Formats: sequence, structure tokens, C-alpha cells
Amino acid sequence: MADVAIGVDVGGTGVRAVAVHADGTRAERTHSKDLKTLDRAEVLGRILEVVDQAGGEAGDVVGVGVGLPAFLSLPEGEVRLAPNLPELNGWNAAEELARALGRPVAVENDANAAAYGEAWQGAGKGLDPMIYLGLGTGVGGGIVLGGEVLHGATGMAGELGHLTVYPEGAQCGCGAHGCLEAYASGTGIRRAFLEDTADIPDDAFQAAYGDRDQITAQQIAELAAGGDASAFRVFALAGVALGIALAQLIHVFNPTAIVLGGRVAGGAWDLLWPTLWEELTQRTPPALREPLAILPARLGADAGAVGAAGLAWRQVGAA
Amino acid sequence: MADVAIGVDVGGTGVRAVAVHADGTRAERTHSKDLKTLDRAEVLGRILEVVDQAGGEAGDVVGVGVGLPAFLSLPEGEVRLAPNLPELNGWNAAEELARALGRPVAVENDANAAAYGEAWQGAGKGLDPMIYLGLGTGVGGGIVLGGEVLHGATGMAGELGHLTVYPEGAQCGCGAHGCLEAYASGTGIRRAFLEDTADIPDDAFQAAYGDRDQITAQQIAELAAGGDASAFRVFALAGVALGIALAQLIHVFNPTAIVLGGRVAGGAWDLLWPTLWEELTQRTPPALREPLAILPARLGADAGAVGAAGLAWRQVGAA
Repeated sequence: MADVAIGVDVGGTGVRAVAVHADGTRAERTHSKDLKTLDRAEVLGRILEVVDQAGGEAGDVVGVGVGLPAFLSLPEGEVRLAPNLPELNGWNAAEELARALGRPVAVENDANAAAYGEAWQGAGKGLDPMIYLGLGTGVGGGIVLGGEVLHGATGMAGELGHLTVYPEGAQCGCGAHGCLEAYASGTGIRRAFLEDTADIPDDAFQAAYGDRDQITAQQIAELAAGGDASAFRVFALAGVALGIALAQLIHVFNPTAIVLGGRVAGGAWDLLWPTLWEELTQRTPPALREPLAILPARLGADAGAVGAAGLAWRQVGAA
Repeated sequence: MADVAIGVDVGGTGVRAVAVHADGTRAERTHSKDLKTLDRAEVLGRILEVVDQAGGEAGDVVGVGVGLPAFLSLPEGEVRLAPNLPELNGWNAAEELARALGRPVAVENDANAAAYGEAWQGAGKGLDPMIYLGLGTGVGGGIVLGGEVLHGATGMAGELGHLTVYPEGAQCGCGAHGCLEAYASGTGIRRAFLEDTADIPDDAFQAAYGDRDQITAQQIAELAAGGDASAFRVFALAGVALGIALAQLIHVFNPTAIVLGGRVAGGAWDLLWPTLWEELTQRTPPALREPLAILPARLGADAGAVGAAGLAWRQVGAA
């Protein structure tokens, strides 16, 4: 059996691991759900468990990469702030994981890991600079430049969900107004849909859409695809917000590829694309659009784990 | 005499050259004005002339760097689009300059050259990532990352004047709405002041401010500093626009330094700063502001030429 690196993606609600060969092929994968209530020791335990499961059958494990849903101080590899797993705040993740796993460990922000995954083995392969946006509950981002994840001064670069698109717009979870995340995340799409349908009485809403509290971005995407005017409008406006944000990134980076991933983008490409592209073309000169491809992500839910594995391979000098 | 590199800054209205030693000290400088009517051969002639003047007394010239007010295709060094010197469009500048000068030549976009100058020998020395914004007639930008100018796919990265700050805002010279340049450039400040004072009858305007057609951003800055409410408001709003734009760059790069230069910033720091900082703090988390210094540029009008010289030194392997 050929050597593998194990990539681990710690999400807000579960831990996923994928064993990946040096050439990027995936050998084994495993998934441990229902993380939300766990503390630091249990997160560590889950990581050890999935690494063991994914690695046991796959081959010799040369290293482990771990993507965490957190701001990390790099190169130290310490968790600075994990909004959805506050028990991890202050955790010296790189050091403790390396000790517990007995192997070289690379830690990375989850969106940066997904960006690296798409650049290494996904839609952005061979395209540089590559910018990744992951539309999920929030909007994560990562930038791969010269084959490396852009980290900035202290490891917190690539916070693309908090690009301002409407300075006086909807309030974002971060407290600021008009962030991309307030429009193009699952949370933002839900908020916009509930606003757009606020005049509909509860019983009529219930009959048409089900429970107000329960509706998801995925349902709204299905409604939009089925012709519902409110749902369609909400995705069209999310596309406009994405177009504004991408125009910023295009002026900044003159990128070769922008890859859109995450659950929300996966199911809604056709809904987002027309307004995204129209807005973007109004805000960028042709010379900056010419070298650019805007692409759907290819690795799906594996992106973060594959990227983390790639970073582990890179750390041991083989990718 | 120690060796020098000559840095040349071709502006919309003149050509400036500075002879710079490998350690960054400036030896000679010269300036050739009134470029506006010149064609390609005359621009080349002016460059040869200033290089000769700056280099003659200073020492042996190891190389020449030239900053051009143009989108350049890199690494080819060809002028893709020079909005204020359209005769240069399509010029194979790197090749023709190297032949005419008989020396190694590095060409660079003028704002990128100024960014490199400030990073190499100015306010951003030793600070990385460093972002430079030059507020002049327009707003130029440049990003220095890992000691190198960020070029992107085809050499056009760092077009920071066209970051959108108000998606439905004032129209920019580029055709898009709400670009930073439409608010924080000399042109933008003039436009905003004329809008803010549009209700004032011509004779009253003339008595208070002089000719409507002739008023400059510098005069408006002086008026603002002297307590004129309209002028003060215009700079305050330019500060807000800068705050919004810088917040984007902070989320993208997690930078160590942002350097503000150019004629407009030079004279108006105290007018721009309060609203800039207030807006920026509302849009960025403390963790991203902690490692960051926002600084006035130090090299003044020499920034572009010094940066071009630094790039020439770098090209011959000495900086």
C-alpha cells in the first residue's frame, strides 16, 4: 500500500477525514457527526478516531492535516477564535495534535484548507492566483498564490465573507453592515427570503412554504428553481452581491480562477450566475476578465479534508 | 563613486528620474515636465534624457527601472493600456527601453513602483504584507507580498482605485459606479465639492472660492482645514470611502502595513483620518487591526522613481 496523508476537516457539526495519496487520489474517508456539544478533549478524541479509521486500511500515514473552523494564529497554529466551537479558543492545536497523533501535523483554517484542496486537486488545479469562496452557513474564503495559501501577517488573510458589498446594507453576524456573508450565505439567503415574504400571513406562508423557522437555503433554492418569485429574487440578489465582491477580488488579484464551493453554491449555480456575471462585467475591465475562469468547485464536501491532506503532504516535502 | 540604478517615473504630465544606490540612498534627481502632448518616440527620448542626466554624475549605472502610467502585460513588459498617454498603447516598453538604454531594464506600473518604493525604502520598510494606495488625480494601488509586487495572472493586480465602495454611488471614470477613485481621488474630491456646493449661485461661489472650473483638491483641502463646511464634509466622506475600501483589503490580506501616499493624501491626512478610522473599526475585528499600521507615505513624489530603481537593483540581483 502506498503512503497516505490524512486530511481532517473539523466542521461546526462534524469531523470528516480523507486518506489521500501523494498524487491526490483519495483512498479512504470517514465522517463523525454531531460535534456541536463537544469540548476540546472530545474534539481531539474525534480527530484521533477519524485519523485512525481513515488511515488504518489505507497505508502508512506520513502526516496529518487538520482544517479547523477558526481564526488561527500562524505559524504557531494556535486557535485564536472559533465562533462555533468556543471551547477551542486558545487551543495550541498544532502542538497538541502533533503530540497526540505522533506525526507531523499541519493546521489550517477550514476555508483555507478547502481553497488549497480545490487548487491542489479540484477546479483550480494549475490555475494561479486562485480564489476560493465557500458558501455554506457563512461565507468562507481562501486565496492560493504561488501555490501557497495566503496567510498575511498573523494567519487571518482570506476572510472573504466579510467583504463589504453594501455599506449600509443588512447586518452581518460579525456586527458590520452589508458583508457578502449577509447576502450570499445560507443564513443570509434565509434572512432575505424571510424579509421578502414578511407580508405573507403565517398561515399562508405555512401552506406555501412550511414553517417559517425551519426553512433552509436549500429549500429556497428549490423554490427558486421551481419559479417562486421571492425565492428567485433572493438568489438573484445574492448573485449581485457575489458579483460586487468578486469584482473587488479581481481588481486586487488579477486572478486566473475563482472557484465557488460550499453547499449553497453547489445547488444554486444557475440561480446565482446570471446576476453575478452581469454585475461583475459592469465593474471590471475586459482585460481583467480575459485570463479569468469562474468555476464551480469539484471536490464537494471533501474539499477541506483533501486540502488539509495536501498541506500535510506539503509539510513533509512531497506535494 | 558607488554604482547606481536609475529609477524613472513617467507620470501623466512629466518624467522624473532618481539615481539610487543599492542601499537605497538617493544620489541625483531630475525632472522633465510637460509630457502631455508627447508621442511614443518622445516619451522614449525623455526617458533617455532623464536617465542620462540622473546617471551622469552619480556613478556607474547598473540598470534602469521605469514606472509607467499604464496597465502592463507582465512578464512581457508591454503596455496594454495607458489611459493618459494613449500613444503608448501596445508599446513593447521593456524590450525597446532595454535596447535604447543598452542596460537591463525593469518596467512596472507606476502605482506598483511607488508601492515597491515605500516597501523598500519608505514607510513600509520591513513591513509585509504591505498595501500602498496613492491618492492623486486618480487612485492607484500596489501590494507588496513576500518582498515582491503582486502581479496576478497578467500583471494587472493591485487596481485598488476601482474597489467598489458604494455599489450605486457616483460614476467613476472607468464607467462603473461607486469606485473608491470616485470619492478619494483629486478628481473625486473636486466632483463631490462641486456637487455639495451646486446650489450656490455662480457669483457667490466665485466670491467665496474662485472659479468653479479651476478649483483643485488641494484648495479644497485648504478650505476644509480652514473650517469650510462643504470642503470638510467632502474630505470626511472621502475618509469614509477609504475606510470601507481598507476594510476590504484588511479582510483579504491581514496586512502589516497600509501606506497612504500621493498628493491628495499628503496634504489631507488629518482631514481623512477620523472618518477613515471610525469606518474601518466598524468593519474589521480587533484581531485584524492589531498587527496593522496605517501610515503616511514617506518618499513623497520620489516614491515611484525610488521603487523603479529598487526593481532595477532587484533585477540585477542586488536588492
